[in-house]
Amino acid sequence: MKIVAAQINPTVGDLQGNLHKIRTIMRQADCAGAGLVIFPELALTGYPPRDLLLYDAFLDEVQRIVYREVLPLTCKVAVLLGAPWRPRKKEGLLYNAALLLDEGTVVSCHAKTLLPNYDVFDESRYFSPATLRQPALISGLKTAITICEDVWNDKDYWERRLYAEDPVEELFAQGARLLINISASPYHLGKAQQRERMLCAMAKKYGVPLFYVNQVGSNDELIFDGSSLICSGEGQVLYRAEPFKEEVIYCELEDNLPVAVTGFERDEVLLTAPVPEKASPPAKILAPEEGMDWVYGALQLGLRDYLGKTGFSSVVMGLSGGIDSAVTAVLAAQTLGAKKVLGVLMPSRYSSLHSVEDALLLARNLGIQTRTINIEVPFSGYLALLNDGVEPKLDLAEENIQARIRGNILMFISNREKRLVLTTGNKSELAVGYCTLYGDMCGGLAVLADVPKTMVYKLAEWINGQAGYEVIPGRIIYKEPSAELRPRQKDQDTLPPYELLDSLLYLYIEENKHVNEIVALGYERDLVEEIVSKIDRTEYKRFQAAPGLRVTTRAFGTGRRMPLARGYFHRVSVKN
Amino acid sequence: MKIVAAQINPTVGDLQGNLHKIRTIMRQADCAGAGLVIFPELALTGYPPRDLLLYDAFLDEVQRIVYREVLPLTCKVAVLLGAPWRPRKKEGLLYNAALLLDEGTVVSCHAKTLLPNYDVFDESRYFSPATLRQPALISGLKTAITICEDVWNDKDYWERRLYAEDPVEELFAQGARLLINISASPYHLGKAQQRERMLCAMAKKYGVPLFYVNQVGSNDELIFDGSSLICSGEGQVLYRAEPFKEEVIYCELEDNLPVAVTGFERDEVLLTAPVPEKASPPAKILAPEEGMDWVYGALQLGLRDYLGKTGFSSVVMGLSGGIDSAVTAVLAAQTLGAKKVLGVLMPSRYSSLHSVEDALLLARNLGIQTRTINIEVPFSGYLALLNDGVEPKLDLAEENIQARIRGNILMFISNREKRLVLTTGNKSELAVGYCTLYGDMCGGLAVLADVPKTMVYKLAEWINGQAGYEVIPGRIIYKEPSAELRPRQKDQDTLPPYELLDSLLYLYIEENKHVNEIVALGYERDLVEEIVSKIDRTEYKRFQAAPGLRVTTRAFGTGRRMPLARGYFHRVSVKN
Repeated sequence: MKIVAAQINPTVGDLQGNLHKIRTIMRQADCAGAGLVIFPELALTGYPPRDLLLYDAFLDEVQRIVYREVLPLTCKVAVLLGAPWRPRKKEGLLYNAALLLDEGTVVSCHAKTLLPNYDVFDESRYFSPATLRQPALISGLKTAITICEDVWNDKDYWERRLYAEDPVEELFAQGARLLINISASPYHLGKAQQRERMLCAMAKKYGVPLFYVNQVGSNDELIFDGSSLICSGEGQVLYRAEPFKEEVIYCELEDNLPVAVTGFERDEVLLTAPVPEKASPPAKILAPEEGMDWVYGALQLGLRDYLGKTGFSSVVMGLSGGIDSAVTAVLAAQTLGAKKVLGVLMPSRYSSLHSVEDALLLARNLGIQTRTINIEVPFSGYLALLNDGVEPKLDLAEENIQARIRGNILMFISNREKRLVLTTGNKSELAVGYCTLYGDMCGGLAVLADVPKTMVYKLAEWINGQAGYEVIPGRIIYKEPSAELRPRQKDQDTLPPYELLDSLLYLYIEENKHVNEIVALGYERDLVEEIVSKIDRTEYKRFQAAPGLRVTTRAFGTGRRMPLARGYFHRVSVKN
Repeated sequence: MKIVAAQINPTVGDLQGNLHKIRTIMRQADCAGAGLVIFPELALTGYPPRDLLLYDAFLDEVQRIVYREVLPLTCKVAVLLGAPWRPRKKEGLLYNAALLLDEGTVVSCHAKTLLPNYDVFDESRYFSPATLRQPALISGLKTAITICEDVWNDKDYWERRLYAEDPVEELFAQGARLLINISASPYHLGKAQQRERMLCAMAKKYGVPLFYVNQVGSNDELIFDGSSLICSGEGQVLYRAEPFKEEVIYCELEDNLPVAVTGFERDEVLLTAPVPEKASPPAKILAPEEGMDWVYGALQLGLRDYLGKTGFSSVVMGLSGGIDSAVTAVLAAQTLGAKKVLGVLMPSRYSSLHSVEDALLLARNLGIQTRTINIEVPFSGYLALLNDGVEPKLDLAEENIQARIRGNILMFISNREKRLVLTTGNKSELAVGYCTLYGDMCGGLAVLADVPKTMVYKLAEWINGQAGYEVIPGRIIYKEPSAELRPRQKDQDTLPPYELLDSLLYLYIEENKHVNEIVALGYERDLVEEIVSKIDRTEYKRFQAAPGLRVTTRAFGTGRRMPLARGYFHRVSVKN
């Protein structure tokens, strides 16, 4: 039997568009004589559909498409399709289901058992867990069909488990001889490797081949890397799909063992003969450590998809001459093409000469358009209007108004020219509130919102390394960071060195450690208290922040839900 | 036995502050010879603590406070305290618990069974449900102790139930003779009455007295009305606490029947003898329909608490001469005192004469400060800077820049004078995106964000009715609404009449009906499609909106989680 694993990039809510992808691949698979096509978790709706699932009309339309559009395609080829599904007999229930469709009927509905409801996940908000688990018969082969989280609870693999149930174990106790997992597993740095290790161990443990089919593409803040896998029963990777790209994988099974695997780009499949050459499957070593290449790839995908899926094709952004806007500009230019990127230089009376020079040099290297708009006129206008003729006070109000003038200019260009504004701030400054609400925080997408400042530097160096020359001028990388909102301002006047700051942020935000625990690790108490206090007191800014692309284990946004109006218990616990 | 029900207003995360309230009331109850003091759900942490619950240090501190601070107070008086609690034997579990503390020990831990995980609730994110339910013994009386949602699943009361389990039924099957429910039940219009009907029916069904103790106060977007109740076993309301206020209720129980009930303001309890006079309990009729008095009270509480709990004491807001800013200004002045409110008039070349006059008259009626800052200078400055000497185009970019200049001015004043900016937009305009991101959407709290425009009118009329004169000048109420961002602009150029718009919003947002379903109710298809499309396409604005106070069954914010980058299935379903 030939099995096709379709690592596709669905758009949330775009049922017709997603159906079109599904239909195209099924027809190709049909021509190629495949027996089964596997799509990712909730492939029909895209993941995560969020509160679209609360609309009955949406679920009705899903059901209509499955019955009227997908079933007629299954005369010769079966499909395992991820979709939200209402079991007929139990009114009010909704499953996150893998539907096995064959010969024009719904053969079986495999509901997800383990529903993640932590971090960015809200699955208990929508779905009921499976209460019954049974293997499916696929070409006579008993197959364990699981959905994403279902495979993440192996008692032999994890020290601590989140759930009591292990659906995989239960399915193998019923004699399954093949394991399929359909997923929408979002990316963070290191995730692909973590996933691969776990999946290989699982295939080996049960001694069966494993098809892991993951969604690729970015939906709002979540980036899905794909990295679909086919493993042998010995726990060897037979095929590893490219990350961050759509791919259709053809795998020949002989005596229930995968013997030949070939991957195609989705469009390629359409153009060329879809029947793969036979070849010995390569025994691949484990994926190497994920480095800046992965972060860069993830951000590119996130940026491309956010634009594509919101209907924008070009962007505008501020070019300050600093490293954050430089890295953002490179990402935008290399992802969308230089012609689609407009960099706006908005110097003020406090801008250093080199910031304009550096920004222009960067823009020249990238070939992007620039526009220079000095903000002195509106700035001095505001000062005259709001200071009642008194001399400037160089206070926070005056610093912020500069950032807000810049935000207004970018939004003006966005409104008039239909360009999406890219926000350039990094995670470190967003964490401690070193940013201006409605100022530099303006924008439709905050590209680096989950990239700590130290990682921004690494990305910049990686970018220059890849290019083989200083695409990002060295001075941008090596000068002292400054917001340039008052004379001689430097980030490090207000903040500790970024290496130190980022360690603290990691402990407090990603590891959920609190003041005393962090101090116990050897950090200075006053500093820890100051930083934690800054983070706590600036929740209100992040509440109104642009959506940001997630690349760490804990991003701001839906993955971290903090109260705004609150007491600050850490100050109290410090006293005790 | 004397039972004390403490309807308190805890601040999320302020463990020491909340402990202080708990301790004060317990000492008074102790002096008054009470046998039991009941506090609301999660009283120690405030509800909802959100991701503070993911910090072990936070839970450690809760545990420390219970053991070291609360238990020593229970020598003579027992306490039923809502707190997050880790059962010792099962590592990793966390309960939303009612702890019965007496004579220096934790007598029993009653975990919540039904964990709401819909709308604004995320309880499955944090808590495990109770697996065992047993009545507590309180002065020898078998008592069913339940937490909020636990009482909302009675099969005799509801046509459709959300959960299979009914913890109340189970507890009464074990012979309970008293029902206690501790809650943090957020307000929406009609909720108090809905709650009272349900609770009275439940007390009657089981034939036992019921103590319902609800949190009061506002935390971020959620307003808790309190409205704690004591019901007789005949389903009569014996005592109904005032909504939107802290109150401590003393109730004498004789032969397990409540015989005398008196309520005190929390501070009053501190000053006067806490032992209530004996009196026959009044048999009260059901609470009357909730009207604008309730909405107004809810918004006042929301406003007062958001300021108090974030540490602000004064506000600044734009006064446009329109009805939204007028109602917001009245709310602010009547809640915080006129001296704490600064109204800023920011007329432009497109402002009508009457807008300034009307705003000044309103301010004079309220006695609030005003400042007038004409935005012509920055506006024409921007036009010159950004239009390259070309004539104004009167396009969206130019409309928005006016709103953004106003936002900047308010934020400047906020930054310099430490006043919180109040956002004045209503739910209807937020729904269809008839508002400017970073412009009139600027602010720390969006007071009317969940009040539809038609309800804003009702509030205005109610306000004037209460005052006995036109606090809000009649012209503000009766003139045609306009954003005044271009010549002769009127809301109704772009939007349908508000009565019609609000009906559609109700159906689409609160009722989750979709295009075809709404059209089937008799609305014109083109209009429905246009409005639904506007709502869908402006999710990105609401994503960055200020927190708003919830007064309907479905507010924007955490209660409605929609994707941003998405396909729009309604256009497709229309074609089919």
